[in-house]
Amino acid sequence: MMNTKPYYAVIFTSTRTEGDNGYGKMAQQMEDIAKQQSGFIGIESAREEIGITVSYWESLEAITKWKANTDHLFAQQKGVKNWYAEYKVRICLVEHEYEFKK
Amino acid sequence: MMNTKPYYAVIFTSTRTEGDNGYGKMAQQMEDIAKQQSGFIGIESAREEIGITVSYWESLEAITKWKANTDHLFAQQKGVKNWYAEYKVRICLVEHEYEFKK
Repeated sequence: MMNTKPYYAVIFTSTRTEGDNGYGKMAQQMEDIAKQQSGFIGIESAREEIGITVSYWESLEAITKWKANTDHLFAQQKGVKNWYAEYKVRICLVEHEYEFKK
Repeated sequence: MMNTKPYYAVIFTSTRTEGDNGYGKMAQQMEDIAKQQSGFIGIESAREEIGITVSYWESLEAITKWKANTDHLFAQQKGVKNWYAEYKVRICLVEHEYEFKK
């Protein structure tokens, strides 16, 4: 995930409803499908009290296409119906980055 | 955390070293101090295999000041020495957002 060009981060924060109800399987599927999308750069995710998933994309166009992906649309509908008590999506331009490795 | 003005997200992703070594206490302290900074909007955080903390700020200036805060600088040094195997910081302009609540 090294980038010199401008790129975008989609921050998806969510609170789950109780129980799995097929959520784990869907989450893995969505990650697998996202990775095959044009313009996909990477994805990182962790959940404790809330879940945070950040996906990285080459352009706003790539993000729009991923949002409109048929399998993803189906998961979004199930998400609103079954899986999420609430969520928030933020689409962000990455302006600056730095890192540390031991 | 409602915003109509442009604002920034700092995405901090990290992999921990083994053991706590005072990390949990420091993380809570840093969150408490961040909340007192000028221009602070909010903070969200979760850790599984990796940790993701996203803090939200009114301006790049507020982010720069928080990075240079004395207590925070001390924690950054300890972080590099003791707590993190690696980390990455991305400073992002939030361009668009939407949310869902049950």
